[in-house]
This record gives sequence, C-alpha cells and structure tokens, in this order.
Amino acid sequence: MSELDRIRSAVTSSSDRFLQHLKHACSFPSISAEGLGLADMAIWLEGRLLDLGAKVSRLSVPGSPEALLGEFVGADSDRTLMIYDHYDVQPVDPLDLWDSPPFEATERDGKLYARGAADNKGDLVARLAALEVYQELYGQFPYNIKFFVEGEEESGSVYFERICEAFSEELKSDDCVWEGGWFDLDGRPEMYYGCKGLLYMELHHKAITGDQHSSIAVYAPSAAWHVLRALASLKDSEGNVVVDGFHDRIVPPGTREKELLDAMQFNEEAMKKRLGITEFVKGLRGNDLKYELLYAPTANIAGFNTGYTVPGGQKTVLPAEAMAKIDFRLVPDQDGTEIAGLVRRHLKEKGFGDIQAHVLSHENPSRSPLDSTLGRAAEATAAQWFKDPLTIYPYMWATGPMFPIAQGLGIPICSPPGVGRPDSNLHAPNEHIHIDDFYDIIGYTVAYLREYGQTDPS
Amino acid sequence: MSELDRIRSAVTSSSDRFLQHLKHACSFPSISAEGLGLADMAIWLEGRLLDLGAKVSRLSVPGSPEALLGEFVGADSDRTLMIYDHYDVQPVDPLDLWDSPPFEATERDGKLYARGAADNKGDLVARLAALEVYQELYGQFPYNIKFFVEGEEESGSVYFERICEAFSEELKSDDCVWEGGWFDLDGRPEMYYGCKGLLYMELHHKAITGDQHSSIAVYAPSAAWHVLRALASLKDSEGNVVVDGFHDRIVPPGTREKELLDAMQFNEEAMKKRLGITEFVKGLRGNDLKYELLYAPTANIAGFNTGYTVPGGQKTVLPAEAMAKIDFRLVPDQDGTEIAGLVRRHLKEKGFGDIQAHVLSHENPSRSPLDSTLGRAAEATAAQWFKDPLTIYPYMWATGPMFPIAQGLGIPICSPPGVGRPDSNLHAPNEHIHIDDFYDIIGYTVAYLREYGQTDPS
Repeated sequence: MSELDRIRSAVTSSSDRFLQHLKHACSFPSISAEGLGLADMAIWLEGRLLDLGAKVSRLSVPGSPEALLGEFVGADSDRTLMIYDHYDVQPVDPLDLWDSPPFEATERDGKLYARGAADNKGDLVARLAALEVYQELYGQFPYNIKFFVEGEEESGSVYFERICEAFSEELKSDDCVWEGGWFDLDGRPEMYYGCKGLLYMELHHKAITGDQHSSIAVYAPSAAWHVLRALASLKDSEGNVVVDGFHDRIVPPGTREKELLDAMQFNEEAMKKRLGITEFVKGLRGNDLKYELLYAPTANIAGFNTGYTVPGGQKTVLPAEAMAKIDFRLVPDQDGTEIAGLVRRHLKEKGFGDIQAHVLSHENPSRSPLDSTLGRAAEATAAQWFKDPLTIYPYMWATGPMFPIAQGLGIPICSPPGVGRPDSNLHAPNEHIHIDDFYDIIGYTVAYLREYGQTDPS
Repeated sequence: MSELDRIRSAVTSSSDRFLQHLKHACSFPSISAEGLGLADMAIWLEGRLLDLGAKVSRLSVPGSPEALLGEFVGADSDRTLMIYDHYDVQPVDPLDLWDSPPFEATERDGKLYARGAADNKGDLVARLAALEVYQELYGQFPYNIKFFVEGEEESGSVYFERICEAFSEELKSDDCVWEGGWFDLDGRPEMYYGCKGLLYMELHHKAITGDQHSSIAVYAPSAAWHVLRALASLKDSEGNVVVDGFHDRIVPPGTREKELLDAMQFNEEAMKKRLGITEFVKGLRGNDLKYELLYAPTANIAGFNTGYTVPGGQKTVLPAEAMAKIDFRLVPDQDGTEIAGLVRRHLKEKGFGDIQAHVLSHENPSRSPLDSTLGRAAEATAAQWFKDPLTIYPYMWATGPMFPIAQGLGIPICSPPGVGRPDSNLHAPNEHIHIDDFYDIIGYTVAYLREYGQTDPS
C-alpha cells in the first residue's frame, strides 16, 4: 500500500465522524456582519483544537471578535507552519431561496448544503481532520503548527491587521497555508499565491439644500451631473483609469508568472454564455484576457443613486444630492491608502474637490513567492494526489486579508486546493460542497503536511 | 363710484358664497394620476356651468378623462374667448406632512389650505365667480365664451392634444385665457404668454444577464459605466448640450421680449439663500440669468440608478443594469419628437446605440403674440386694478399643455394674474392660497372680461 493510499484509507475509516464534525460546525450561525453565533462557534473550535492536543489562545484587540490560535509543538521547534482559516460566515438573506435551512447541514445528491459549508468551514474542518489523521499515522508533527482562525473575514477583517500587529511574536511562522483554493467546474484542482486588493470608496455630493422643480436646472447646480462628470473623469474613452500615478506601482508578471498564465484555463465561451455577451470588454481574449484578470486593476461603479428612480415614472426633479460607490480592485504593489489619496487629488484637480470621497474600506493586494517551501510541497503533493493537473494562479482575482500576514508579518502564503467549486454558491443561498471533495481535501492536506516536513526550506 | 369699485363691491357682497364654492370644489379628490374623484368633480363643475347659463358638452377621446366645455352665447357671436383650466389635482403624498386633511379646505391666518386650492381650482372657481358677477353687473356677454376644463393636466395631458384635434371646430376661439399667472412673494402680479416644453426620456441598459461579483469587471461590460458615459457625452465641460441640431430651432428674443426681460424681477440673493449656494451655474447673474431662465433649454438628470446604493454599505457588485431619467426643458421652437430623435442619433453615433432611450412624455414649448387682444386687455386692466406694476413673462419657465391650443388650434394665449404665489406649495403638502388673492382675482377677472369686450381685435 502506497503512502497516499494509507492516508486515503485512514481518512475513509473516520469519514462519517469528520462529516459529523462539519455538520456540527455548520450548525452555528456565526454571521460576523450580524454579530451572531460567533461565541458558540469559537467554543466548539477551541474544543476541537484542545482535543487534538493544541494549546489554545484567544487573540483580540479592543472591539474585535476573538481570533483563535491553536499551537502544536513540533519535534523541530525551529520551523513553524501557520494554517489560516476563518470561523465566521456570510449572512443568509434571502432566506426564502434556501431549499433547506442554512444552519441545518443537509445532504442531497452527494452534496452537503449549509451556510459556510464551502466558505470556509469545509476547509477549516477538513484541516482539523487532517491534523487528527496526521497524528494518528505519524505521531508528533515534525514542525510547529499555528492554527490561526479569525472571526471577521466576511465583514472585511476590520481588526485583523491590528491583531496581526499586536500578536506578531505569537504568530511568527515560516509559511502560511491560506484559506483554500478550489476545484474548477471540471474537477481540476487550483491553488494561488496571492490576491488582489480592494479599495471601496463612496462619493457624495449635496449641491443645493433640497430637491427642486427641474425648471430651475437652468441656474441651480446639479449634484447628479457633478458626480457623474467626476466619475467620467476617472477613465478615458477606452475605459482605462486616468488618475495620475494610479498605475505607477503595478508590478508586471515575471517569467514564472507568465508560464503560469499560459497554463491557466479560462473557458471564454462558457463565460460569455453565462454573462449573455458576445465579446469581452476591449475584445479581450486568450492570454490578454488572463493577464488582465490577474494583473489589471479595476475601477468599478458598484452603485450610483440620485433623484427619482421609479422605472417608467416621471418626476421633473432637480435632485439635491448624488451618491456613487466605486470599488477599485488593486494589484501588487498598489496601496489602498495611496490610491485613495490619488483619487482625491485627481478629483480636486479636475474641479470636483467639493465632492466628498470617503474610503469605506481597503485591503491591500498581496503576493507571495511562487517557490516557497510550502508552495513546493503543496504542488509536488498535488501532482501525486489528484488525477488532474493542478492550475496555479499567482493571484486570485478576488480579495482576502492576506496582506497583514504575507506583507505585514512577512510570511509566504500559499492557498492549496480546497473544498469549494465555482458553483458552490458562496455568499448565496444553497451554499454547498461535494462531500467527496471534502474527504479528498482531508487526505491531500495530510499528504502535503507530511511533504512540507520533508521539503528543504527555501 | 368707479367701475372698478362697483366690481369690487359686487364681489364683496357674494364673497362668502364664492369661498363656499371653492371649498366645495376642493372637497373632491380629483387626482388624475390615481383616477380618483374625477367624475364627481366633473358633475359639480357641470352644475356650476349650467347654473351660470352655459350649454355644457363633455369632450373625450377613447381612454381619456372627460374635458368639459361650457359655452355662453354672446351678443356678438363673431368673437369668442376661451377660458382654459383643469379640474384635476396632484396626488397628496406624503399625507402625514399635511396640517389639515387635503380634501377638507381649512382656513388659517387668512389662507385656505387644500389640495388644488392654488393649482388650479382657485383660478377655476374664481373665473366661474367672475362670470356670475359679470352677468349680474352687465347682463349678456358681448362675445361668446368657451369655458374649457380638462381633467388630466396633472398627469401629463396625455390625451389633451387628441381632444383638441377631435373637437377643433367646437373649440374655435379668438383668444384664450390660460390657467393663471401669479402674485410674486411681494404681492406683485405676474402674467405670461407661453411656456417651456418638456421631453422626458428614460435610458435603460442591461449589459449582462445578472449582477456579478465585481472582480470580473476586468472583462465583463459595465452597464453603469456605459450609461454614465452616454449621459456625459450629452454635454461639454461647461454644461452645454452638444447634441447635434439641439439648438437649431431656438428662436432668440425680439425687441419687446428683451424689454420685458429687462423689467423682470429676479431676487438673486434670496434664491441663492434658498438653495444654499453662493453662485449660480456659469456665474449667471442679471439679464444673462433671466435670459437663460426663459430662453435656454436644459438637460436635467432627474434620476440615475444602478447597483448597490445603501449609504455607507459595501457590496462589491458589477451591476447588470443601469437606468437614467433625463428631462429636457425645451424652448420655442424646439420640437419634443425631433429632439428625442436627435438624442437617439447622438447616442448611436457616440457608440451608445445599444442603450434603450424611451420617451416617457413630451409637451412642446409654446408662445403666443405679446400684443394679442386679450393680452392688451389683461395688461391694461392690471395697470388699473393692482396697486403694484405687472411683471410680464414672454414664457413661464415651467411647462403646461399650451401647445395644442396656441399652436395646434392657433389661438393666442395669455395667462393673466391668478390666485397662486411662489410659496403656495403647489404639488406639495399644505397647498394654500391667500383668501384675499382669491377675491382680488375674481374682481380683476370681471374687469378684464369687460375690457376685452371693449378692446379692438388686433
């Protein structure tokens, strides 16, 4: 029996119990945006970590939910692997679109439906299970493990950077297993080494004291036109952002990254069909499209509201106020605070300095070396474990709170394949995972934890 | 006793009864936008006209509310004066902001509060009262009178043009008394000879099948940016409309109109204070400001809506759809249908041909000769009747359904001073008039009806 088969067999013999653990974890309504059920979920998690032999600490700063740190002492105490997950979940609205109650994990057709099943309790519980299987098969870990689980990822990780700074000594590690990659729709595993950043701004302008009859638009200033023209000034006619300095810090892909881009799968026709379009913007296709997806920042209008908006209705109003929301997806090494300053300077210089431009949140983009010790271990293991080849993304195109770990604490991050799929309905009703993926990821995690111990530090 | 004093005395002796008539008229919830109470109001009005000796017809086309035509045969049957009013009113929302029930006319501090008290049942009932006083003082009218009252002015007079066309013979007249001018805030009477037009368009664009995670804004088209850029393309950086042909038909003011502009009162500081601004757009002041108010068209964004718009909230969404409403105030001789075509052609030429641009309504601008028989009679009477000088506007800056009468039937229009004031809260809660203005306008109307009979046709 090969080593990997031993692992598979060990997972299988406890699979029912591991699934029960996941169902139990999914029974807690740990919705951070609503402050619900976090404490009970933290107690359950602490119990699991204690069962596995960890020393557990609760890390917090004033106002924050508690992050849990479960420390396992390894045979070689000079080397430490961090595993990052989060125990909070998204809200469940609209509740009436769920086919089964979101906090009663339900099996249907080989899938498990529950809020958090994919994001990210599935990975969290799979990794706890992997620690158990590892210890059962191999005894003490050869290196220290710091199992670090925050409770506010789904509400913007507002305090996360401060927690990481306040406990930088406690969190010191050599590598970090991030939240979790994916399987694609065809079941091919995917992993990534970084993420885009996000700067979320809200523009607001009040031009006159109150709404007026539109006949006076002749002489009274229009908040709607002012904010509209301010937004229009951010881009040229091709859709490129023209804010001075916006692109200055962008790091182009290196040789290895270009190879990864070449190898990336992107089913253009399927995506066009899903969106109901015949062309991507700027006619993007092939490598250009993949390049933009990972290396191009965006300035997206997430919302704009002014005046009277009942479809088909008529009100001849000059609206007093206008509001717009823009989310900028940032790429390494753009900095959210700096970009917000550039946007404000741009608005001022273009004659829109009277528009309030608030930053609602920002998370910086993050990237880690593509040849980290963990990365090599996870890639080598994936090549043996999965029947399909691994797709490696230098970054994921979405955003997560990686920056405080990867850049703040200087710990290289890698996000090996995890339990989710693109149709897992993350942040949506009927979130689910394939139960076989869950077992598969437990075994794969055991295998790369073992491989990591046998990989020479880079 | 002077002739005007005789008229004043006759009004005073029936003033209580006339106020009762107005209160009765205001008790009907004749909200055309909601199809309420129109029939009862029409019955009441028909009764009043019959009492006064008119022959009453009900004019309608399929789908329209009924317009009433009350005809009085004059001694000289070759000459006919039309009097136009409307018997419908605006909706009453928000009801909780009314200090007394909108359809129970209530006296407070010399004012009468009710929906329609100013717009336009006050003028309607004052003119009916004037017909009564006239007949009491002078007997038969020296010319025919066609008292024409429509029931859908407050919902865009959708069928009004068709009614005017269908009954063009019945409506044939030499002059038309329009709905009613005003007193300004200082009590000075105002009248006008025309109005701006209105073209109300709604733009709508759906770029993708449904809202998406904003990370794919890299390659998926944005409805928000598309509609925003389409709107931005309509104006230059100074705010001037740059749609080809938009200004072509605009008629500049003539000598008499320029004199009237010079004489127009416009309290710039009071208006700035009311709006909470320090400057009008483009630094407009003095005659330039008055000129723009009457002779410049507008393109006003009445509404724009796309995506997520909860203030302070964050949702990283690429909205699938965007919607905007624009109202264009048109000036003579712009044509609403033609302008809509020009806007559509502009959008197409600028790359926005995929945006739906619906016309929700349009009313053409209208102007009448400044030296009509009726105008001369109303001006001459005003000079004697009111202690303050009359302000004459070639056009009012708002819009009404004048075009089908003035241009469609070729009847010169004049809107002599009426019962409203700028703070009468038209279309708003606590609509009201000054009761003394109501009596004053009854008498003034008797006086100019008499003067009209003595004025040589121009």
